[in-house]
Formats: sequence, structure tokens, C-alpha cells
Amino acid sequence: MLSSLFERRRLPGRADPARTIEDMCTALLTEEGEVSGIRLAQTILDTYEALEREQKRAFFHYLNDRLELDPAEVATLAGAYAKTGTPEDYRALTRASEPRRQELLRRLNQSFGATAALVRMRVDLLEFLREDADLKRTDFDFVHLLRSWFNRGFLVLRQISWETPASILEKIVAYEAVHAINDWDDLRRRLHPPDRRCFAYFHPTMPDEPLIFVEVALTRTIPDSIQAVLSGDRPPSNPEETSVAVFYSISNCQRGLKGISFGNMLIKQVVGELSAELPQLKTFVTLSPIPGLNAWLRAHDGDDTAGAVLSGTARAEDVEHMAARYLLEARTPNGAPLDPVERFHLGNGALVQDVHAGADTSENGLRQSSGAMVNYLYDLAEISQNHETFVRGEALPASRTIRQKAARQKPARQKAADQATARRKDGP
Amino acid sequence: MLSSLFERRRLPGRADPARTIEDMCTALLTEEGEVSGIRLAQTILDTYEALEREQKRAFFHYLNDRLELDPAEVATLAGAYAKTGTPEDYRALTRASEPRRQELLRRLNQSFGATAALVRMRVDLLEFLREDADLKRTDFDFVHLLRSWFNRGFLVLRQISWETPASILEKIVAYEAVHAINDWDDLRRRLHPPDRRCFAYFHPTMPDEPLIFVEVALTRTIPDSIQAVLSGDRPPSNPEETSVAVFYSISNCQRGLKGISFGNMLIKQVVGELSAELPQLKTFVTLSPIPGLNAWLRAHDGDDTAGAVLSGTARAEDVEHMAARYLLEARTPNGAPLDPVERFHLGNGALVQDVHAGADTSENGLRQSSGAMVNYLYDLAEISQNHETFVRGEALPASRTIRQKAARQKPARQKAADQATARRKDGP
Amino acid sequence: MLSSLFERRRLPGRADPARTIEDMCTALLTEEGEVSGIRLAQTILDTYEALEREQKRAFFHYLNDRLELDPAEVATLAGAYAKTGTPEDYRALTRASEPRRQELLRRLNQSFGATAALVRMRVDLLEFLREDADLKRTDFDFVHLLRSWFNRGFLVLRQISWETPASILEKIVAYEAVHAINDWDDLRRRLHPPDRRCFAYFHPTMPDEPLIFVEVALTRTIPDSIQAVLSGDRPPSNPEETSVAVFYSISNCQRGLKGISFGNMLIKQVVGELSAELPQLKTFVTLSPIPGLNAWLRAHDGDDTAGAVLSGTARAEDVEHMAARYLLEARTPNGAPLDPVERFHLGNGALVQDVHAGADTSENGLRQSSGAMVNYLYDLAEISQNHETFVRGEALPASRTIRQKAARQKPARQKAADQATARRKDGP
Amino acid sequence: MLSSLFERRRLPGRADPARTIEDMCTALLTEEGEVSGIRLAQTILDTYEALEREQKRAFFHYLNDRLELDPAEVATLAGAYAKTGTPEDYRALTRASEPRRQELLRRLNQSFGATAALVRMRVDLLEFLREDADLKRTDFDFVHLLRSWFNRGFLVLRQISWETPASILEKIVAYEAVHAINDWDDLRRRLHPPDRRCFAYFHPTMPDEPLIFVEVALTRTIPDSIQAVLSGDRPPSNPEETSVAVFYSISNCQRGLKGISFGNMLIKQVVGELSAELPQLKTFVTLSPIPGLNAWLRAHDGDDTAGAVLSGTARAEDVEHMAARYLLEARTPNGAPLDPVERFHLGNGALVQDVHAGADTSENGLRQSSGAMVNYLYDLAEISQNHETFVRGEALPASRTIRQKAARQKPARQKAADQATARRKDGP
Repeated sequence: MLSSLFERRRLPGRADPARTIEDMCTALLTEEGEVSGIRLAQTILDTYEALEREQKRAFFHYLNDRLELDPAEVATLAGAYAKTGTPEDYRALTRASEPRRQELLRRLNQSFGATAALVRMRVDLLEFLREDADLKRTDFDFVHLLRSWFNRGFLVLRQISWETPASILEKIVAYEAVHAINDWDDLRRRLHPPDRRCFAYFHPTMPDEPLIFVEVALTRTIPDSIQAVLSGDRPPSNPEETSVAVFYSISNCQRGLKGISFGNMLIKQVVGELSAELPQLKTFVTLSPIPGLNAWLRAHDGDDTAGAVLSGTARAEDVEHMAARYLLEARTPNGAPLDPVERFHLGNGALVQDVHAGADTSENGLRQSSGAMVNYLYDLAEISQNHETFVRGEALPASRTIRQKAARQKPARQKAADQATARRKDGP
Repeated sequence: MLSSLFERRRLPGRADPARTIEDMCTALLTEEGEVSGIRLAQTILDTYEALEREQKRAFFHYLNDRLELDPAEVATLAGAYAKTGTPEDYRALTRASEPRRQELLRRLNQSFGATAALVRMRVDLLEFLREDADLKRTDFDFVHLLRSWFNRGFLVLRQISWETPASILEKIVAYEAVHAINDWDDLRRRLHPPDRRCFAYFHPTMPDEPLIFVEVALTRTIPDSIQAVLSGDRPPSNPEETSVAVFYSISNCQRGLKGISFGNMLIKQVVGELSAELPQLKTFVTLSPIPGLNAWLRAHDGDDTAGAVLSGTARAEDVEHMAARYLLEARTPNGAPLDPVERFHLGNGALVQDVHAGADTSENGLRQSSGAMVNYLYDLAEISQNHETFVRGEALPASRTIRQKAARQKPARQKAADQATARRKDGP
Repeated sequence: MLSSLFERRRLPGRADPARTIEDMCTALLTEEGEVSGIRLAQTILDTYEALEREQKRAFFHYLNDRLELDPAEVATLAGAYAKTGTPEDYRALTRASEPRRQELLRRLNQSFGATAALVRMRVDLLEFLREDADLKRTDFDFVHLLRSWFNRGFLVLRQISWETPASILEKIVAYEAVHAINDWDDLRRRLHPPDRRCFAYFHPTMPDEPLIFVEVALTRTIPDSIQAVLSGDRPPSNPEETSVAVFYSISNCQRGLKGISFGNMLIKQVVGELSAELPQLKTFVTLSPIPGLNAWLRAHDGDDTAGAVLSGTARAEDVEHMAARYLLEARTPNGAPLDPVERFHLGNGALVQDVHAGADTSENGLRQSSGAMVNYLYDLAEISQNHETFVRGEALPASRTIRQKAARQKPARQKAADQATARRKDGP
Repeated sequence: MLSSLFERRRLPGRADPARTIEDMCTALLTEEGEVSGIRLAQTILDTYEALEREQKRAFFHYLNDRLELDPAEVATLAGAYAKTGTPEDYRALTRASEPRRQELLRRLNQSFGATAALVRMRVDLLEFLREDADLKRTDFDFVHLLRSWFNRGFLVLRQISWETPASILEKIVAYEAVHAINDWDDLRRRLHPPDRRCFAYFHPTMPDEPLIFVEVALTRTIPDSIQAVLSGDRPPSNPEETSVAVFYSISNCQRGLKGISFGNMLIKQVVGELSAELPQLKTFVTLSPIPGLNAWLRAHDGDDTAGAVLSGTARAEDVEHMAARYLLEARTPNGAPLDPVERFHLGNGALVQDVHAGADTSENGLRQSSGAMVNYLYDLAEISQNHETFVRGEALPASRTIRQKAARQKPARQKAADQATARRKDGP
């Protein structure tokens, strides 16, 4: 129905030339938006998608400059409100201090499919941003609104399985960012065995577009090799006999939602779901890459062990020693962990549990971390404490195992004991 | 899972006194919100619901006063931004000019069910507002966010039928605000016959709570009596042989969403849905009350016809004459139609189509409008034009029928011709 | 689409008079059935439903007499097969020994909705059967096919709740045969509280028609009063704190499925479902009427206790004593329990657990059983043993409680102990 | 729940040796079946699946011989019924004339998943049947019951699309019997474009198992090449601008349902569904193989044209001439078309519409039919008439086009005219 009405709008009989997208946006912000806003919003979004690249750039500059707030007016109204304190002056101030592009984006977000169109629009914006930092103002407003619309309360967690429609599964294949899915057989191996799980967040207005997903392996012990996890010919375990849930891959799907973080919530909700389904699960860990290890090692050029690790001639325990040191000691100038994956998980309240040499023997794994990987442990009962410790900078939450590996104190038998401890709430 | 964690928080063994809701809100706005925000948000909402009335009032004053913006800071930052124009100063300004209670409300809206809890919270706020106009500032922020969260793109239209779960149907019974539904038999008469329809908007996070619903009768001619429409023993029509869809009742369900309007969009989308299902439908009208008629008549005390209408002794054509005059002539000081229902429909782009004496013989119908009712016509092809005409104040969109009734020119045979015209796009 | 084709079949231009239903049935059984069988089957069923009562009777006689097998042919073919033993002669014999009406019913059961139409057809047949026992032959064939089509593997168990569509709920109200549901409030009391459940079987081809349903109360102790169970103002229990599931009403819905029994399977499957959902449930009992008690008491006219019970002047323990004796001692000539409800439950493998005076104080309860009711206990681990004992006539499965009541030995304190025993697998 | 009970049955501690499958079947047919039939039926089916091949053969002989009817008893009871005509004697006769294995199969079909297990059991039976024709008696009974359980009224038509779960799609890939699906990309090409459709029948008790499916291409003209239909880089058509629906592949999925035909009904129902969705579709044709063409040509060895066709040196019009003659003239001894695919479609009421040379250039297409393919036309309005004509042997339903090709009369320009005619109901 809507499309037929649009057709009519563009009938050749109309004398006036077609309106520009900017004209339509202006109309949407004024009274026309009230009575036929949905149709107009839809037309604007359709028009936008058909624009050439430079026209799109111009459109963002229109948003950035023409729909900008007026700081002088804001200052004046702030003064008035400071004096009177009345609700009316409050309203005037808050209205003036929100640029009109925010209201425009809200009004565009009225038709079915609009949210997805705005997310795609931001993909373009992020690209223009690289060349034109001034567009950051518009991007702040996109982020502000997207964060409100993609708040946790609106998201829907869905299990992805071999019963999931192919139209969604092909997106899982496309979006997997950590350990590529080669083909449908590979996908089947990750979804179908009884000891494998996958969960994704969706937004109600984008039912076919996963926002983020995590792949989980249910195992009997904490795994020390991603190739073993992904192996095609392992016999599956009975999920009721497993005790460890391994988050071995987590991928964001929507570039247009950059800066709106779902991973923290996803991991915690999946921990909750799995605990409810399989109460015997005791340990929730990741098997994560260490993307910054080799770069850090190269910066320690004179160190013999670092050199041996980089040249692939080091013993496993040396690789683990250096990886543990990197994770515990390497910091950014402001004191945060240098490793970005580590920052993410410790920021979520996890702790560094263990490192493994020879854990990722893929080309990429060898190049970035000499094959080492790390487990971050999520213990729901300790998460708040870990996070507080971490944020206050008091200590970096880590298991005794990892501390001993960093200090080269670890006796062989300790490892098993440590893993047992992990199941009972390992502290730092 | 969540609830068991909450229990633990409140164990009697804990030495520290329980935190106040204000303390928890402060924590949610700072770092604690980042790692355990969902749980904390849920606790705050649960705590709020258990507060006494005066504690709730205090909570709103906390929002209104303690989480207020600082106009001096806004003025300063506006000055800085005016000078530099940098994105960083822009961000600082927009952050400062949004009161922290907005961010609080967004963070509260993270857990499942939070949106519904915030809508209930606003019901309380609206009540306190009557006594304490200063809280309007907080209400502006509620409206601002609710409008963003309940934008059209997020709403879901669902047909309400005799196949709908009883848990939702009992809410339809409870929320019907125009023509009360007496019992389940009455409800069945409105939903089950093949020539009856009902549609409602829902929000994805409140799947059991209709936001607004409209009841529709499919008929062969424009009806002139609500009692005939609601009659228990009429034979149902074959819907494929009807030509008129009558919107005879439209009810908002959520007091907490006052000021966020759905009616306009609902009517138009239902017109679209019905047109797609039954292409032979040509006329979309309401059968609406005229709530202000008798009050207006009483203000014209000296007028004999007005007196006769009020005393119930007037002829039908006199009642219709006065009702037509009221609808066409009675205005508010700023020129809008005096009748609130008329304002709503003309604001949506409808036109006044016809009036009928003896159309609502219920006690309420006689008291408010001496039994008269009105049809507003929704012609999708004319809606924009009608609205523009109406908004510019050029003319009040009305059919020839109603103009003639107002002018007492109407010959008896005109009526049928007029109704035929209505099917072909009646103009004002 | 189908209906428009039917219309065409009946165009007035057709010279031949419309075919009789018998003609169409004959055609369906021959080649026409192969290419346009679905349409023809639908027409036959539609035609049947529009027949007058006497035409329907004639139709059943057509089935009974004209579509009968030929016993002489059967005898001949049986002889041939006895001699040759070939598959071809086997096929010839089995074809000849099945009357053609069976194949007709199978071919009628091809269109959507046909199964329901055949079930309705049997309702008529059962009525004619009262006057014309010869139609029993046709009824045997209906039962034979319906039993095959309504086998347990095809049935779907669905929970009936306050979330169930009203169109199904109104059927629950209509079909409740034991304790009438007065109105929707009464229905809500039986479905909505957290300690109430209702389950029904459906057939995939009749998704809106429950076949049988059972109402369940979750309680802390075995209840001794149906009025207490149905009471409107009891506070609901937390289902996780209950230990007893009480099947207090079970109703067959389809008269046309008389003789095809679902109750046995329904109770056992619901025991399984409830055990999975609420593992702490230990006792599964009915609270059942004793429909034959008063009739049996009247036959023991001289007995003083029987007289006192009948006149309503007996003490509770006397009522229970007589009810227990009735249940344990009263038999049909061939040794089965006299009480039909008791026969049903003991035939399912239940045992007689307890009787209660004053348990049903409704008019009907007082008239049929002087207010007494009985609990039958379903212990899945004992069901096979109970059934075997019962079928072999070795003993009537009953608890010690009921035996002592029958023998007047029961000390007051025994009752509590006995109930405790019931939770650990009470034996007879 | 069920599985835990089964486990218990097989505990090593049990002193008694496990029962044989035959013992359990006997028990199921007697009283034990009444109280714990579902569990016992499940155990029998599980036991069967674990049997060795020779044990399975023995089981079928048990069914065939031990659960056989007694023809002498049948003859006696037929005599009794012939004499008395009473319902009781009727019942005795019909019971005796049905072998007990039929009742056994019905009782086995009680548990969830049993129908699928019985279909798999028949796959085994069909294999044994090749070596042991006597088992045909048991197979007659399987077919008799399966036909009743898989009657059209119970089947569910579902569209197979790119939204379908992967678990079902992988079965479509596996079961495609006409034009193999190479991989998921190939599957996507058949399901996802807007001008492609696929429909399958399912049985409610086997929701993951398609019974039969048909692949459809929506086109602007009747296609003359399967490679063009399957091509990977054709631009998709707007379905609303197509006029022809081409059934280019139809595959049965369940070997265990051999002899129970769904294809006729599926094609006709899909014609109905597509007509409802896209009313502008006018022509419903197949693009079918001609599997017997080359074998027939080889039998006409002396014919020069036949030789040229077989050697691949013939002109297109010669290939079409010979293919047309084969389809119109080649018959089985009893007068039916020699080609099995032709028999199927003409038996459904279709007519032979056209033949195309070079239509299937795959290895298989060249080998069986020298690359020729045929269109069969389904015109719902003519189906009954076609079928009657065909069955009575009056004529073979065929278009003028095909007759002219067979007679070599066809002028080039005729083809277009003929195709136009096809859209208006082409007659033979």
C-alpha cells in the first residue's frame, strides 16, 4: 500500500521538480510530519539509500551543520532558566540544547524497517568520519539515540541452532569474525552436536539481523587448544556430563552499531541460561586470542626468551611465561591492560585464568601470539568484586595459576589443583 | 536466576543497612552500573514499586532536583562551543544540557519488563503532578524518552479476535473507554462475527499490554446509530459484501503514556490493512460521540432550537442542524474546533461527514449530546490536503451534507446522493 | 478456491438433476475418486450436513446395507486362500472381508476438516442406533477407523491456561461435565492461579476442538472437599511448595468419539509432565465422585447405617465406612467393581486411596453419594502391578486406610501416617 | 521420563532374561497393552531398530506367519453371519478376517515418533520382499494402514524457503531425485529468488521429515530448457509479472511410503495455492524428463530418424518429432503410455503440451532422451475431463502443438499462437 502511494507522489504530471532529501527532512521536522510522517520518513530513507556517495556526504553535512543547535540561544535560555527555574523555561532550554537532527532521526525511525536503515546509514557516516572529523558531532547523536533504542531491555536472546532458518545462518557464517566458518558443514559442526551452543541478540525491529553472537563448547575440562574445539572428528559429549562452558568465539555483526556494546551482557545472560538448563556446569571461561602478544614481545627485543618465542623455538612453558607476563604487566599509558581483548573481559568482571602454548596453531594465531591463547573466567558471584578491584586499579584480577606462570613458580601438579579451584570460585 | 541474586542482597546477615533507592540510582549512574547494571536496575524498579506514597513523591523530587542539569554549566559550555565549534566541546555541551535523570531512566530501562515498570511509574508521576507543577520538568523527560521508545517503528499491530488469549481479552474489556463491554458475551459479539474487527498496537517489551485499540464494524451503509451497531441480535453481514468500515470505538489503554499519541497512526494503518484484505471497502468513517454539544447548547440558552434540543422535544432535523452548527462553528479562543474528538480527527486529516439524531440513546449519549453522533471520514487520498487546509486555518474540512445541515438547506433526497459521493472521495 | 469450483459444479445450466449423496459415494469409490477425490469428498460431507433427519437415516442404511460385505464371497475366498496361501489370494480375501463403507470413510477423510465432519456424522449415527440396532455394523466400522486415526501417537497434549484463545476456552466451559463452570470468572479461577493446571488432548486435524481435558489442583495435602478446591477466595499456593497433584475433573468432549478412550493415557501423560516440571510432587490422586453409592445404599434398606447415611443423619465416619465398603465390596455379576468411575481408574492401574464424607455438598453430590467422594491414587511405579492384580481378580487394589475404614478399624492418628505413606508408594 | 523407565528394564541386575521382541508383541496384543501399552510399544520399536538383519527378517516372518488370519475360521464365521446377519456375527467375522498383525501395527503406533519408526520398518520389509515374495501379505497390511494414516486430510502443506530451518533444508538436498542439488549455494538459487518456490507435504507426527516436495519456477513463457531454469546467473523475474508456473522437479522422500501416492494431490494443491497468491498466473506446466525415449528409439533401429536422434546428429525438429511420436504412440501391452512419467501426469488429469529438443543437456538427459524434455499441462478446469477421456481409453489428452509435431505439420509461426492458446485453456 505504502509503495503505491509513493509512486503517486512521483507522477510525471507534477509540475514541481521532485523535492530534495533536505527539503523532505525539513518538512518532516515541521507540520507535514504530523499527518503523513510515516510515509515521508519512508521516502526519505528510500531516497537516501539511492544517493551517490558524494550526495550522502552532503546529506551528513546538512545534518551536521544545518540541523545544529545554536549555542548562543542555549546560553540565553540557560540564563533564563537559571533565573526563573520554571518548567516552561526548562523545556525551552532542553529543546534548544538538543540539535534538530536528533528529532529528525527519531521521526525517521517511524516506519517498519527504519531502525535497520538508520544503522546502515551510520555505516556510511563512520566512513566519512575518517576523512572529516567534524562529522563526529552527528555521530555523537547517532550513538546517543542508538544506545537508547538498542538498550538491553529491548534485545531478544535467541539460540542459534541447526533448526534456525538458513537466512539467519548464512549471516552467522558471514559475520563470524574470530574463527572463520568455512562452509555449511563447518557451521553444522558448530551448531548441531549436543555439546555445542550458539546464542545471539536480536532487536525486535530487525528480526533477521543478529547483533552479536557467541559460540559455546561444553566440555569436561578447560580446553587448551582452539583446533581441538573446532575439530571435525571429535566424538560429542553428553551435555549433562560436561562441567565447563567455553565461550570460544564472540562476534559483533553490525558495523553501524560500533560503540554500542552488547558483549558484556550477552556473556552474562548466556551464563545464566546455560546454568538454568545444565545446573551441573561449574566453570564458565573463554578461550581467547592474545592479539597484542607478539607486538609486545618484539618491543622486548633484547630479551632472550622473547626472541625464542618469536622465532618459534621456545619451550611451551616459556611461551606461557611470557604470555602470562604480557597479560599481567603490559599496560597502556593510563594503566589499563595493553591487550584489547583482556581489557574487554576484565572490564566485564572476568579474571585471567590461564594461558596455553600451542593453543592456536593457525597462521593468524602464530603471527599474533606465537600460538598462545588465554582463558578468562566468568564467575557470576565474583564479577562485581573483580570489576571493582579492576576499576579502582587495586589489582588486576587473575588466578594463582597465571600468577605462578608469570613468576615461573608453577609446579606441574599445581595445574590440576588450580583447575579444581576454578570450579569452586577461584579468587585473584 | 536474577531473583535469587536479589534475595542474597537482602540477607539479614548483611551488616550494612540496605541502600536507599537514591543511593542505588547514584550507583547506577556511576561505574557500578557498567558491570552489574541490569541487576541493579531491576532492584531499583522492584524497590520503587514497594515504596509508600510519600516515599514515591520523595523519589520524584530526587529526580527533579538532585538529577537536574546545571544551567550555569550549560551556559559556560555553550560559550565554549560557540567559540571553538569542536566535536569535543559539542559533546560536553550536549551532555551537560541533558539532566542526569534522563540517563538514569535509560539505564533503568535495561531489564526485561523495565519499560512497563517505567510506564507505571509515570502513572504515579502524573498524579503527583496535579499537586506539584514543578515536577513537570521530570515529566518532560519521561515524555521525551517514552516517545522515543514507543515510536511507530517499534509498535506491532495485532488483530484482536476470538482467537486471542483470554489474558489479553480481559484487558480489552477493562480498557474499553467509549462503549463499555458488559461481559464476555458482549465481547464475543464485538470480536467474533465475520463483519467485526478489532486491532491493537503492542510494544515488543509489553506483549500482554495493548497500548490502544480500535473496534471496527463492516457495514453496507454509513451507520446512524451506535445501538444498532452494538445490537446483540443483528444478522452478521458477509464481509465481502460490505463497503463501509466504521471505527466505532477507540480506546487508549495506558495512562502512563498520556501525551504519546497512537490514534492517528492506528486508524491509518487499519485503513490500510482492511483495504488490503477487503479491496471492495470504499468508505472509512468513524461513528463518534460529540461530547461538547450539550454544554455548547446550554451556552446558547436564548435560542429556541437549542432549548428544544436540550429538553428532548426537538425534531431530528433540528438536532442535526444544531449538531452540525456546533461542529462547524464552535471554536476555542485560538480558532480550533471546540469539540475535542473533532480536534483529534481533523488533526489526523479526516473531515466531518455527517451527523445523526437519535444515534446514541444511552444515558451518557443523551446527557452529553442529546443523542447525536457524528461520522468523521478518512479518505487516505485526501488526508494530506485536508490536514493542510485545516492547519492553515483556511477552512474546516467538511462534506456538503454537513454544511447543508448546518445551513438548513438539505433536501431529503440529497442524503442518498451525498452518501454515494462519499464513496468517491467527497471533498469539503 | 475449492468452494468456487463447487459452485461451478452446481451451475443452473446443468441439465442433469443434482446427483444424490449415494451416487456421489459410489463415484468416490470408483475411478472418479482417483482424480478429483478431494473435491468430491468435500461435496459429499457438505451435502450430508445439509440433509434432513430422515435423509440422514437413509444414508446410514445405505452404508449399512448397500456397502456391506458379501459373506458368501468371503467364504469362497477364504477357502481359496486356505488352499493356495498366495499373497494374491490373501489380498483378495482381506479386500472382500472389509465392507466397502470402510474404504468410503477413508476416502471421505481426505479434505481439510473431514475428520471433524466424520466425528459429527457419528454423533448422528449413535442417535439412530438407539432405535435401530442393526446399524451397529456400520458403527463397528466407524469405531475401527476412528480408533486408528485417533491413536495416541497422533494426539497432541496442550496446556489450557489463561493464555489460551477464548475460542477454545469457551469449549472448555461448554464441555466440563463433572463440576460445571459457571462463567468466565469461574473459569479464570480454575486456570489462572499458579497452583492450578489444565491439560487437553487435541488431534492435528481438529486444532480448535479439545478431545478430553483434565483439571488439576496442586496442593499440600490430599484434599477432602471439592468445594474447598473450587473455592473462590482461597489464597493460591506457590506451586514449588506443593506435594500433591489432584485430578479433580476429567471430561470427554466429543460424543462422536464414544468408545475411543483417552482418559487413561491423558492422566498418565499429565503425571509425567507435572513430574518433569515440579519434581517435588510426590502424590498423584483424583478427587472423584462415587456416582453409585446412594443407589447401592438404597438396596441395603434394612441396614441402619445405610438408612442414616441416606437420610443425612449419619456421622462422618459412618458415611466413610459405608462408602469404603461400597467401593471394596459392591460388584457387578461378573466380579468387576459396581461403581463405573472406580472401574475406570482401577482399570488404569490406580488404587482406591481414601474416602471423605462431606466432600461434595452440592445438590448432585448429596443426591448421588450423600456428599462422599473418593481419592484414586496413581503411582506410576505400581501401575502395572496394580493393574495385573486387578485384572487377574486376585485383589482390588486399595490402601490400608480404605481397608480400615471399611473394617471400622481406623484410629484417628492413623490417617496422617497413612497419608505420609502415600507419598512413598503406598501398596494395597 | 520414558527413557529412564526403559533403562530400568535393561538393568544388568535383572535375573530374568530379557523378553524377545515376539514375546513383547504378544503381550502388547493382550491385556498388558491396555495399561502400559505406550511404554511397551516404544520398547518394541527401540528393540526392533537394534536388531541384526537376520533377526529383522525373522521378525517379519513372525508377523507374516504367526500373526496371520485363520481362513478356516473366517469361512466358518462368514457362514454364520450369512445365516444370522446380526451385528455380533458381523463383528466376529470382521475381527477374524483381519490378521492380528494389523492390530499390532496400530498398537505400535501409539508413542511419539512411532509412525516414523514404522515407515523405517517398511524400508526393511521392502528389501526382504525382493527375496521373499511371501512377505507380500505383511506388506499389504503395512500399505493398508499407512494409506489410512497418511491420508490427504492429515497432511500439511508447507512452503520450503530460505527461511526454513537448515535441518529440513539438508533433507531437501538429500532427497532431490531429479536434478541433484550440488551444495547450499545451489539450494539457495532454487529457494531464495522471488520467482522460485518449493512446497512439501509433511505429516503431523513427522514434522522434520518431508514426504514429497515440488520445485517451481515462475516464468514469462513455457521454458524449453532445464539448464536455463537452473542457471546460476539469470536475473530473477518479478513474480507478479510472470504468467507460467513450471513444476520442474518433484521428489518422493520416504522409501518406506512406496505405493502411497502424494504427487497428484501435491501438484493440484500447489496450483491452488499459487493461483491464490498470484492470480495472474495462467499456465501450470511441468518440465519433465522423458526417461523411456532412447530405449524406444533403439527398438526402432531401422528408422533413419531414430538413428540420427540416437547418434546426436538429428536436427531439433526431428528430435521433437520422434519425442512427440513416442509420447503419443508408444504403449504398454494393456494400452497405457509406455513412458512412466507420462503415465503419472496423464493419470492426474494433465495433458501432453509440448516437447523440446536440447532441453536437458546433462549427461543423464542425453543418455535417456537425447536431450529432449516434455511439458505436461495442468488445467484445473479440464482435469476431470482429461482424466475421464484418458481412463476410458478414448484418446490420449494432448495439445494441438504436440499432435502437429508428431505429424510433422507444425509451421514455425504456430508455436507462438499455440502457447497463447495454452494460457486460455488449451484443449486436446
